[in-house]
Amino acid sequence: MRIDADRLWSDIEALSRLTEPDRPWTRRSFTPRFLEGRAWLARAFRDAGLTTGVDAGGNLIGRREGAEPDARPILIGSHSDTVPSGGRYDGILGVTAALETARALAEAGIALRHPLEVCDFLAEEPSEFGLSCVGSRALAGALTADMLATTRPDGMSLRDGLRFVGGDPDALARAARAPGSIAAFVEVHIEQGRVLENEGVALAAVTDIVGIARWRVSVSGRTDHAGATPMPYRRDALVGAAALIRRAWDMANAAAGDAQPLVATFGRIAISPDAANAVPGEAVLTLEARCGDEARMAGFCDALLADRADELAGLRVSARAQKISHAAPTPCAPVVRAAIHGAAGDLGLSIRDLPSGAGHDAVWISRLGPVGMIFTPCREGRSHAPEESMTREEAADGARALARTVLRLDAALA
Amino acid sequence: MRIDADRLWSDIEALSRLTEPDRPWTRRSFTPRFLEGRAWLARAFRDAGLTTGVDAGGNLIGRREGAEPDARPILIGSHSDTVPSGGRYDGILGVTAALETARALAEAGIALRHPLEVCDFLAEEPSEFGLSCVGSRALAGALTADMLATTRPDGMSLRDGLRFVGGDPDALARAARAPGSIAAFVEVHIEQGRVLENEGVALAAVTDIVGIARWRVSVSGRTDHAGATPMPYRRDALVGAAALIRRAWDMANAAAGDAQPLVATFGRIAISPDAANAVPGEAVLTLEARCGDEARMAGFCDALLADRADELAGLRVSARAQKISHAAPTPCAPVVRAAIHGAAGDLGLSIRDLPSGAGHDAVWISRLGPVGMIFTPCREGRSHAPEESMTREEAADGARALARTVLRLDAALA
Repeated sequence: MRIDADRLWSDIEALSRLTEPDRPWTRRSFTPRFLEGRAWLARAFRDAGLTTGVDAGGNLIGRREGAEPDARPILIGSHSDTVPSGGRYDGILGVTAALETARALAEAGIALRHPLEVCDFLAEEPSEFGLSCVGSRALAGALTADMLATTRPDGMSLRDGLRFVGGDPDALARAARAPGSIAAFVEVHIEQGRVLENEGVALAAVTDIVGIARWRVSVSGRTDHAGATPMPYRRDALVGAAALIRRAWDMANAAAGDAQPLVATFGRIAISPDAANAVPGEAVLTLEARCGDEARMAGFCDALLADRADELAGLRVSARAQKISHAAPTPCAPVVRAAIHGAAGDLGLSIRDLPSGAGHDAVWISRLGPVGMIFTPCREGRSHAPEESMTREEAADGARALARTVLRLDAALA
Repeated sequence: MRIDADRLWSDIEALSRLTEPDRPWTRRSFTPRFLEGRAWLARAFRDAGLTTGVDAGGNLIGRREGAEPDARPILIGSHSDTVPSGGRYDGILGVTAALETARALAEAGIALRHPLEVCDFLAEEPSEFGLSCVGSRALAGALTADMLATTRPDGMSLRDGLRFVGGDPDALARAARAPGSIAAFVEVHIEQGRVLENEGVALAAVTDIVGIARWRVSVSGRTDHAGATPMPYRRDALVGAAALIRRAWDMANAAAGDAQPLVATFGRIAISPDAANAVPGEAVLTLEARCGDEARMAGFCDALLADRADELAGLRVSARAQKISHAAPTPCAPVVRAAIHGAAGDLGLSIRDLPSGAGHDAVWISRLGPVGMIFTPCREGRSHAPEESMTREEAADGARALARTVLRLDAALA
């Protein structure tokens, strides 16, 4: 079985070139440009011998039958939509690598035991309806009537959006797959981070799609005149915030070498009154913790506030936290992770484990069966930007790893 | 000589009641309401036997001649304008206490050696022309043609504004006093801080009107995806900023007990991108240092950056500072400070030294001769707000100290 690196690269170029011309690289879901990409993909799927169609949930799926009639399908793929002014590889690599895998299997005359389904999931990126992972939600039976009723700024409902892309909002039950109904799902994706590039490693097997917890942290002191208030009388909320920011860094760094590393970010801050001559009386921050270990992620903010309680008291300020959101981590299945490591070994490619810090369709597909992801390097971690970049060989290695993983899963899974 | 506490309190109430009715307490310079206050004051000055007029710089001055024809005048007073939605005592206390001092001297039949001038300086607070201390600048010969040409939002120039309040922009040379032409200047003012109230001390003799240096401090790291970037690869500008904020607090607190205490404030902060899921790549802060010691004030930011250089390097971020403004400290004259302390002793009132963290007309008048200030307590340090508050006895003690200080200066000065 041979992955054709040039053909794959030319597919990536052809699909990414279908962009809004004034702001490359943009192919937003639920737009005419998106349908252009879909038409290109559907033709390529059919040329690869796949039985191709759009399911009720708006997913483009090309199917190749397996040798065992009752075997559950192995799903591979990703998404062809982009963020506005996004890149040429996020999602596109995964769809084209899956297409190339199907072609390589056909060309090599390999009959799999399991059916193979090449998927282009609908609207993985946040759409104008305010929803992401629309197609994978539908596949998981998690696309609700409330979601269908949401409208985008021009007034179109998601219900009508589904029809626009060839789906059927009244037949979503047909698109939904039952838990246990798939043999496995594997997706190739650029890392969107710097680890593989910095370490010179070819591939990563994703361990978990990390959970994300966010809190609004408020530090309260007292607003005072910055000239007329000596230091011993001050209760400076920004100084209290600084103590938390500085310590969160140390706590997260101390956990950087853990099997389940944690990252913590104070990404937003606003103070009042925010005047050069006023002691800040209030600071409001957003803290985010991501980790594959749900308990450590969920407990991070409390642990931080407890750790700094004495310092904050000494600063004469108080801090309180309110949880804004909580998304549980999604572990990747050991059987898929093992197949990915085995595939890298078969190919002589270096590989390491890595959590995914960003969300993916696999979060939803994991409700249906074992999931896994293969990360490839990308330049400087840039993603969701026109600077997103990778090499032809890196793309080909991702596709080679995917194809070998499919072979291994086909052999290993019931 | 007897200060009439009730009369003083009723003067404060009468003057402060001349406010824009919809936003107490507001009597902005260069408005009809301001002229109402001026008319009330001019009448009271004349009733106290003072020769009263508005000088070319727009200052209302009431003069009482001295026994020695060649003696230079002792100036006392403050300002009757307020900030928008300000308080009832800032400035008003100083003008009415000076008026009450002149009345008490007259009632007691005391002839001073020096002439006494009771001053209501024009526009001490920042005016709609963007300028503060307009009248005291004129007295110091520092009101320039450029300043006269500035306009307020409705198009009126400061030149016309001066005419509106009875000044003469073409005769400013007449208003300007020569260096050495005054015997002394003393002003009573609320502290606008919490020290006297917290310590239960009746009065303060101001040591210096502190200098103010401001810097724009920029911390540069790198914007990264908060999910996909492990801690060891991050260059978080907000964490670097936190290190500076936290350390500036400790450095300033370490100097809190110094004879010339320093205060340092990070009063503004903005980060980019300021998104929950992004590692901040840039933080821009405003740092302010105030101190009576110009060298320590001016060197604070460099000292802070040097102190944290290793920590910032360890955090993989850089910091740079740009000076925005620099106002030198104004020391109060030993002869005036000694007279104030002596006055407090005469009256059996507790007193301490204190720097003034806010600017005052005395900064400009110090070009003409020795200056000093008497601070009284106020509630919770609140100022420039309707909650500004003090008691009748605190106001009376301020006036009593002013009157005794005038007697002592009259005896001590040439």
